[in-house]
Amino acid sequence: MSAQYNPAEFRPLTFHDAVPAFKEGRSNPRKYLEKCLEVIEAREPVLRAWVEMNIPGARSAADASTKRYQSGRPLSSIDGMPVGIKDLLMTRDMPTRMGSPLYENNFPKQDSACIQALRAAGAIVLGKTVTTELGMSHPGPTTNPFSPIHTPGGSSSGSAAVIGAGMVPAAIGTQVVGSVIRPASFCANYAIKPTMGALNRGERQGFSQSHLGVHAGSLADMWHVSIEIAKRSGGDPGYPGLFGGSELRAAERPTRLIVMEAQGWPELDHDTRGAFEDLLSDLGRAGVEITRRSEHSLVEAFERAIGESLEITRDICAYEMRWSLENLVQQFGGGLSDSLTSRLDIARQMTQDDYRLVISRRETARAAHASIAHIADAIISPSSIGPAPRLDNKGVDSGVVHTTGLPNYNAVTSLLGAPTITIPMLAVKGLPVGVQVIGQQHTDDRLAGIARWIAETIPPRSI
Amino acid sequence: MSAQYNPAEFRPLTFHDAVPAFKEGRSNPRKYLEKCLEVIEAREPVLRAWVEMNIPGARSAADASTKRYQSGRPLSSIDGMPVGIKDLLMTRDMPTRMGSPLYENNFPKQDSACIQALRAAGAIVLGKTVTTELGMSHPGPTTNPFSPIHTPGGSSSGSAAVIGAGMVPAAIGTQVVGSVIRPASFCANYAIKPTMGALNRGERQGFSQSHLGVHAGSLADMWHVSIEIAKRSGGDPGYPGLFGGSELRAAERPTRLIVMEAQGWPELDHDTRGAFEDLLSDLGRAGVEITRRSEHSLVEAFERAIGESLEITRDICAYEMRWSLENLVQQFGGGLSDSLTSRLDIARQMTQDDYRLVISRRETARAAHASIAHIADAIISPSSIGPAPRLDNKGVDSGVVHTTGLPNYNAVTSLLGAPTITIPMLAVKGLPVGVQVIGQQHTDDRLAGIARWIAETIPPRSI
Repeated sequence: MSAQYNPAEFRPLTFHDAVPAFKEGRSNPRKYLEKCLEVIEAREPVLRAWVEMNIPGARSAADASTKRYQSGRPLSSIDGMPVGIKDLLMTRDMPTRMGSPLYENNFPKQDSACIQALRAAGAIVLGKTVTTELGMSHPGPTTNPFSPIHTPGGSSSGSAAVIGAGMVPAAIGTQVVGSVIRPASFCANYAIKPTMGALNRGERQGFSQSHLGVHAGSLADMWHVSIEIAKRSGGDPGYPGLFGGSELRAAERPTRLIVMEAQGWPELDHDTRGAFEDLLSDLGRAGVEITRRSEHSLVEAFERAIGESLEITRDICAYEMRWSLENLVQQFGGGLSDSLTSRLDIARQMTQDDYRLVISRRETARAAHASIAHIADAIISPSSIGPAPRLDNKGVDSGVVHTTGLPNYNAVTSLLGAPTITIPMLAVKGLPVGVQVIGQQHTDDRLAGIARWIAETIPPRSI
Repeated sequence: MSAQYNPAEFRPLTFHDAVPAFKEGRSNPRKYLEKCLEVIEAREPVLRAWVEMNIPGARSAADASTKRYQSGRPLSSIDGMPVGIKDLLMTRDMPTRMGSPLYENNFPKQDSACIQALRAAGAIVLGKTVTTELGMSHPGPTTNPFSPIHTPGGSSSGSAAVIGAGMVPAAIGTQVVGSVIRPASFCANYAIKPTMGALNRGERQGFSQSHLGVHAGSLADMWHVSIEIAKRSGGDPGYPGLFGGSELRAAERPTRLIVMEAQGWPELDHDTRGAFEDLLSDLGRAGVEITRRSEHSLVEAFERAIGESLEITRDICAYEMRWSLENLVQQFGGGLSDSLTSRLDIARQMTQDDYRLVISRRETARAAHASIAHIADAIISPSSIGPAPRLDNKGVDSGVVHTTGLPNYNAVTSLLGAPTITIPMLAVKGLPVGVQVIGQQHTDDRLAGIARWIAETIPPRSI
């Protein structure tokens, strides 16, 4: 079975355009859910994207939502929307296994902040989606929805795959390095990794640069899920939370975009680079000015400031997760993958001053990002260095082994805390590759308008 | 039994001055521990400060420490020090009940970051100390070490009481509003609530202004515990962690101190105000200039900026703990005190914009604090509005009922994220009242030097 993604034909599952039929009584959330369940039944044996489902609970929630539409009182734009939840986040009705055998029996019986918000907005928490081990590098069983011998990416493997497979219209992911945007790129998702702190991470506050993100089959659904979570559970403690209105912003043509090379440019494969350059040409023809690092000294300074994003991110995360990994070693005496063990080894060699140095380098990178705000409306780059690698690949970045693809275009936005939205714009040898736009902190809503303009204006490219 | 505190006679338990005897073989940590256990056995029936103890584990750890001293290889300045741990923090060998019946069976089998650090430094984790319900207002059973009919303060009730009773030389507390400094004031502790983020809060990252703190019988032990934790588990994620050397700074006479009124001044009882004014006179005679709000427009502006610290703190905390309280209501259907229920009611009425407003007011207060840095070396104020109230009192601040004393002098430093150190300088009607010095963020070590100078130079006052 060869890769089969054709962006000109691919129609992801959407929800926002089904709502009018709910309001007019021509359909209802229960019928919508049953269609999702049919797709899941057909494709899950190969996709392996779900860890656990609560189908009776989902049907009951869908029936309750149906009644709200019948009485003309839906709770929000996502009332009745079936949603997949990355299995790092607590759900009161399902275990939270976190991709690790050490958490096989973990069942907190509570809802993470965003799950509370989703339920309060009427969304249907359908099931838990596969994550890599503790959201890091060691992969789960999930396959790519467009080719079963390729990775879906990670760590939000299942959340990206269920969108690519049209099983649900939206799913929740999380990103510390590249865990939302990279799998979304590999699985033809729209996805947002918002501004740092914009969506409440609930019980998972242990990293200073991790984020909740939203995968979806459309920008509208992506935005609706994001903003309805923010309204109800706010941002992380101390952060103002996601800014923006209840509806996706109107499409907005950017005057100028900066092409970001980061640590991905030298690693881009020939075809992906060609497809991306074609896209830039299309943008130019549509009236968007393109600025490259060689054309502006501040952009060059920015590229230098982010030139070791992978290494800085690796060290920040290793130091910050050290004490929880030490607990697992102490409690279980084993059970961590080689990948996590290597991160613990890095952390054990770090001093407090080493950590102070890397967080100060992060501040330098953020300052360099702020200093290019006036030059362009946003940054643009590929969302990954190419399409999904095969399941049996072994990639290495800064000493860390990856089998779910390399985060060379992703660590940078995690480091910057900057919002990024990936759009499924490219196909390379039958597999999806996303293109991301990146904004300044707290401009998520305007960035969504720019992403919308690109998605509505520029045709996807196949190579 | 009347209150019996006399600062001229009171000798708290200290550890740093016992270490030379360990090194010379004249004593050892096991003997030190046994003396602690004798005091505990004698006083615990009335004090009721411990929730759980691991005495066999402590003896074993003390014996291991004894061997390290015998072989001339102690791990740190706190090797062999018995420490009490507030029962909000995870310890792998004891349950973590958090002062709530809902957590009666909570036993995570893991160590919080600071506990890992304490063990790695050779300290002896002796037991868990009483906290109020989830670290908020509803009290536990602990009594004041100087009078069994008075409160020890809260929420770090047990950690403050065990120091006042001479049971251990140091104990770990936490502070969101006034939970370290107020009980320390009532129990004649030295205590530090360090700069926001200076000591890793481990699993408890859910508040944007909570802190780990250290209660001790001496400034040296207080500093040693703080810095040895920071060396090994660092600060909170994203924070540089506590700055300073391994030893307590040399005593340093401040050139000028600002008297802070905050929301405590109008509530100060007559005797406490008199004792504090006497102390200011003593400082003046010792060459320290005293600046009051009427004497400098920036100090006046600062006082105005912190004039609603209690209300801002109440709202920030209510909003940030809402989702975890909702989980408890959902999971147990009850079991929260009236006090916590009233906080949840506040949170349910807050919008995302209400929260944005209070965190922006916090930023305003922090800016006003930074703007007075050049005027003086530190701020000084009472640590509480008077001595401990009786156990059957009911105080009210900004709509929240307190039975462990009012936080009118404490919410401000939690809001500012500024370091504060309380010194047992006053006695009012046989009960202790502390005096606090407050510094700019990240100046904890210099602040300790100023506190040391005051403690060594100015005689305590009894009224």
